[in-house]
Amino acid sequence: MVKVGIVGGTGYTGVELLRLLALHPQVKLQVITSRADAGTRVDQMFPSLRGFVDLQFVHPDEAHLEACDLVYFATPNGIAMQQTRALLDAGVRVIDLAADFRLQDIACWEKWYGMKHACPDLVPEAVYGLPEVNREQIKQARLIANPGCYPTAVQLGLIPLLQAGVVDAANLIADAKSGVSGAGRKAEIPALFAEAGDNFKAYGVAGHRHLPEIKQGLASVAGAEVGLTFVPHLTPLIRGIHATLYGKLTRDVDLQSLFEQYYADEDFVDVMPAGSHPETRSVRGSNRCRIAVHRPQGGDTVVVLSVIDNLVKGAAGQAVQNMNIMFGFPESMALNVVPLLP
Amino acid sequence: MVKVGIVGGTGYTGVELLRLLALHPQVKLQVITSRADAGTRVDQMFPSLRGFVDLQFVHPDEAHLEACDLVYFATPNGIAMQQTRALLDAGVRVIDLAADFRLQDIACWEKWYGMKHACPDLVPEAVYGLPEVNREQIKQARLIANPGCYPTAVQLGLIPLLQAGVVDAANLIADAKSGVSGAGRKAEIPALFAEAGDNFKAYGVAGHRHLPEIKQGLASVAGAEVGLTFVPHLTPLIRGIHATLYGKLTRDVDLQSLFEQYYADEDFVDVMPAGSHPETRSVRGSNRCRIAVHRPQGGDTVVVLSVIDNLVKGAAGQAVQNMNIMFGFPESMALNVVPLLP
Amino acid sequence: MVKVGIVGGTGYTGVELLRLLALHPQVKLQVITSRADAGTRVDQMFPSLRGFVDLQFVHPDEAHLEACDLVYFATPNGIAMQQTRALLDAGVRVIDLAADFRLQDIACWEKWYGMKHACPDLVPEAVYGLPEVNREQIKQARLIANPGCYPTAVQLGLIPLLQAGVVDAANLIADAKSGVSGAGRKAEIPALFAEAGDNFKAYGVAGHRHLPEIKQGLASVAGAEVGLTFVPHLTPLIRGIHATLYGKLTRDVDLQSLFEQYYADEDFVDVMPAGSHPETRSVRGSNRCRIAVHRPQGGDTVVVLSVIDNLVKGAAGQAVQNMNIMFGFPESMALNVVPLLP
Amino acid sequence: MVKVGIVGGTGYTGVELLRLLALHPQVKLQVITSRADAGTRVDQMFPSLRGFVDLQFVHPDEAHLEACDLVYFATPNGIAMQQTRALLDAGVRVIDLAADFRLQDIACWEKWYGMKHACPDLVPEAVYGLPEVNREQIKQARLIANPGCYPTAVQLGLIPLLQAGVVDAANLIADAKSGVSGAGRKAEIPALFAEAGDNFKAYGVAGHRHLPEIKQGLASVAGAEVGLTFVPHLTPLIRGIHATLYGKLTRDVDLQSLFEQYYADEDFVDVMPAGSHPETRSVRGSNRCRIAVHRPQGGDTVVVLSVIDNLVKGAAGQAVQNMNIMFGFPESMALNVVPLLP
Repeated sequence: MVKVGIVGGTGYTGVELLRLLALHPQVKLQVITSRADAGTRVDQMFPSLRGFVDLQFVHPDEAHLEACDLVYFATPNGIAMQQTRALLDAGVRVIDLAADFRLQDIACWEKWYGMKHACPDLVPEAVYGLPEVNREQIKQARLIANPGCYPTAVQLGLIPLLQAGVVDAANLIADAKSGVSGAGRKAEIPALFAEAGDNFKAYGVAGHRHLPEIKQGLASVAGAEVGLTFVPHLTPLIRGIHATLYGKLTRDVDLQSLFEQYYADEDFVDVMPAGSHPETRSVRGSNRCRIAVHRPQGGDTVVVLSVIDNLVKGAAGQAVQNMNIMFGFPESMALNVVPLLP
Repeated sequence: MVKVGIVGGTGYTGVELLRLLALHPQVKLQVITSRADAGTRVDQMFPSLRGFVDLQFVHPDEAHLEACDLVYFATPNGIAMQQTRALLDAGVRVIDLAADFRLQDIACWEKWYGMKHACPDLVPEAVYGLPEVNREQIKQARLIANPGCYPTAVQLGLIPLLQAGVVDAANLIADAKSGVSGAGRKAEIPALFAEAGDNFKAYGVAGHRHLPEIKQGLASVAGAEVGLTFVPHLTPLIRGIHATLYGKLTRDVDLQSLFEQYYADEDFVDVMPAGSHPETRSVRGSNRCRIAVHRPQGGDTVVVLSVIDNLVKGAAGQAVQNMNIMFGFPESMALNVVPLLP
Repeated sequence: MVKVGIVGGTGYTGVELLRLLALHPQVKLQVITSRADAGTRVDQMFPSLRGFVDLQFVHPDEAHLEACDLVYFATPNGIAMQQTRALLDAGVRVIDLAADFRLQDIACWEKWYGMKHACPDLVPEAVYGLPEVNREQIKQARLIANPGCYPTAVQLGLIPLLQAGVVDAANLIADAKSGVSGAGRKAEIPALFAEAGDNFKAYGVAGHRHLPEIKQGLASVAGAEVGLTFVPHLTPLIRGIHATLYGKLTRDVDLQSLFEQYYADEDFVDVMPAGSHPETRSVRGSNRCRIAVHRPQGGDTVVVLSVIDNLVKGAAGQAVQNMNIMFGFPESMALNVVPLLP
Repeated sequence: MVKVGIVGGTGYTGVELLRLLALHPQVKLQVITSRADAGTRVDQMFPSLRGFVDLQFVHPDEAHLEACDLVYFATPNGIAMQQTRALLDAGVRVIDLAADFRLQDIACWEKWYGMKHACPDLVPEAVYGLPEVNREQIKQARLIANPGCYPTAVQLGLIPLLQAGVVDAANLIADAKSGVSGAGRKAEIPALFAEAGDNFKAYGVAGHRHLPEIKQGLASVAGAEVGLTFVPHLTPLIRGIHATLYGKLTRDVDLQSLFEQYYADEDFVDVMPAGSHPETRSVRGSNRCRIAVHRPQGGDTVVVLSVIDNLVKGAAGQAVQNMNIMFGFPESMALNVVPLLP
């Protein structure tokens, strides 16, 4: 049994981790921290967990995280980097669901996240936890940078094209739409039901923190810097990301085969039949990414549709998938759930 | 392994049965029928099932249901009663998720459902599949009338009061709110997103088919006819029923204890702490009913709040629970899932 | 032209007042205050007002409200009572959309609102601004206590019954459902899209501030204290209240005629044909209350369905209606809009 | 007063026309037809119109449309073309809100709409009713082809760029998202609340009927055929279209000025300040199109965000705007409404 600690369990990625880990046969949920809600039972805050999680939130100072085998950080950006060194030194492995270790370029990270990095020397060691790309490194990793939600959906959709070298890597477009839970469980006016409901808007067109993360991942596959226009949108969903990806084909290729072969051995990437339009609800509550690839009117523009549940494959589920890989469990352990439809 | 057939698997209760049964360790999904969609792969209609259900819809004439151990009817009303006798004669057990066997009073059934009953002689044998009331009879049953969604939520909320004889049984009120999936996967204008979205309304105030079903169940507990005003409402949820139940106390009683004791041994009824307000999402995707009981301002009106997922405890989940009881499996087998929140 | 000031214009009642007043032919919008957003253009915060409102928010200290003919308070509770005396002394008339002047019983107000009242001597003068009840007093009023949203929907539904003395006034039930905008434009977790969306719950069953307000209004019509159980619910609507009201008939009566006659001369109360189920969207954006009255199965329980838009007839629209009455304008001036459906 | 008839008034564009025309000071609503609902009062089907529209649906055979000055067709495709000639011959002007007269290339129309055109000789006379482009021709027109919803949002966003010749016209992308009312008030499963709610998907990637319409419009401005990839998406909104438009700049230009100048005199196109992200709700219920133009990271990709209410500027509102132009009324008559927010 892996003794697991969760730092910052009162947000959506935290409760989602709890949902998945509560039924994981190889996990002992040891401790979950919250500064603001220490002493509160977890299932009082999240009654959905009644009968499944018999813990209360513990103040970080009393959490004894060093006694865990693995600690998840489901915290705002900037927290994990404060505590990771001590945990690693104590032999604890770490999965950070925030962004602290996602960008290898420290200057770039500091620019986009607006703070000084607390442990730049640990960044090179961090493995970017996209199993479909980095599975081997994840097995050995002490420190995982769990990918962002948009970056997961966008990279899984574009990587086969870049790997095969069949698109103009200088002119990619990612038009992505996210459910509101992507904004987190934070009391902010734009995320209110009466603001985000029955409403649709783009945001961050000038620049979004996930842009450098996506570009870093795509560049490592393409072998060179890529040109990407990334436009995120807020859509009145609770969960779900739909990325619509556009590229210019540089040579003729059987796109359907390309994708099917690329993901042939992947449990959590489902290449749908030609002509499909994956729906976000088809992955609701599950760790799957579903992808369809189109070439409208037989032209030279490829359109890839990629959907995930932002809280699962886009966050907590991928984190559990990473843990499964790190600890040698079957990769789909506790993740083999049927999406909730309708 | 129980060989299971599903008649009419293209509606919401059908796909929900598939979601639950796909991971049931003691079930072999043998056949699923659809007249209109015979030949179509199940996971083409419901991509959420890709990787979980490797069947196609079969025409009823070619289904060989008699080779099953158990057949679920997830059909419109009036279908199960046509086929049940032949199945029972062939030794197949039957769970009808529609209403054909719910009312013991045939004349009453024929009035509310507007058709002649095809096998009134089988009705007395049918066991009303509310495990919290009829567990023992369910064990032996060949034929289960799976309760309606509103009746499940309302009965579970009122039965402890009637059993204890602490409310005026002649003056009960059930103000119930349902998500739109309760209307089924049928192409009807009032269930359109642009009609039911951002909208709230009562319906069927003059009379609803679930009224006699609820009254029958309550009367059997109360030992006499009850007086009930039942007002259903349509609310812009996908899943969920919230029943707000009102009764007049006839004597002083510790309501919290009464409910806690009544449901102490029930896996799927959760009496919440005093003062709670259960949310429909706290049971989303799960077979639980959560109940809270209030006595506003210490007066003599009791208010019970009862929530279920109409497709699970209100339909497919309860049907699986009934199957588990019938076949001697642990009652929560394949039903032990954490609700999806948010 | 009436020179109008609005105090606290950044909430939903504020922007709704602006929507209605921007096209009012007899209103000159003179000033709108906001402590936090002074200096910001109104249409920057609310782009829906671009081209209609050419003002910026002004700090309260620089608002010169005493130069207005009428000031609306669209503020949290407890603000209007601080400023009303000075305005009245300066000859300005006041409509408070918050609760400061709604309860004539000061002790009761202080208990429910948890603060000391700043000007109890002004309370007796305040007219409760429900035009269908108090039209004559409103004409002369200097100070209007604009009714709460639930109280408007509930009172309009129950008053005809109490006025006619045909129900047991000691045992009324109001099961009310509100859209999320009723919680205001405040950054609070329970009102987030990912919390309130696809979810339904009761709240405040033990007691809600609108209970004493409703009881006060009903008592004044019934001529005696009434017994009322009031259960509010949060429903995933943006706008709309649906009140389902239950009473015990004490004598036989033609309910349809009773309601039609009672509201025969009212512009903003629409008694629907017998058998109707009014939808919240049928009043979306409009100042109408639609009511249907039922007597299920011919029993002695009367069920009244009453719907309003909580931001219009439940707040800003009623406030404009009150202004129209106070200043001798046609009562429906600027309120004669067709509800937005779908 | 213009005597107006509406053919096919039971869909969403029909009820929206009624909402707008009911308060138009120069319109006399003379007749509204429905084959299926003849004899039903309009406000029985749409209670939102109670008090505003005192008509019943009339069978087309008894409609005497030739006595109207103007007839709107709010019908499925293929109806208007059957009746237009007779109406024009009778001196009646026609606005078709369907697609019958939108494409000048008859073969192209017949391919995309799957039927033979009934009056190809009238097509050249039809004026494409996008006032911002064709205002002068609209003034004189007998027959207006009212633009589609997507084509309105997309063309208004791209035309300034093409007109100025600053983008590569061979490589445009329109990623468009529509609310569900765009699918019409038709009983179809994909438009059910439980299907389209909490869900997001692309559709028609292989080809959508609005593609040739958009390309025709853009080509007429660009002076040459354009290359456009158009991907529509269904989003859980009731109303609203958000088009995210991508183009490659061919030369440096002040995009903000370009758009502001292009639309300087337009009542219904609002170019928002630099850096804005227009929300669909900011035009809910109104005839405005709001546009923002971005150049992310100062690169050579221009991103235009364009939002409309698909039922107003995308259908009924634009039709009324066209009528106003045709009959010499102020262009914004009856359209000067404040969007409903929240």
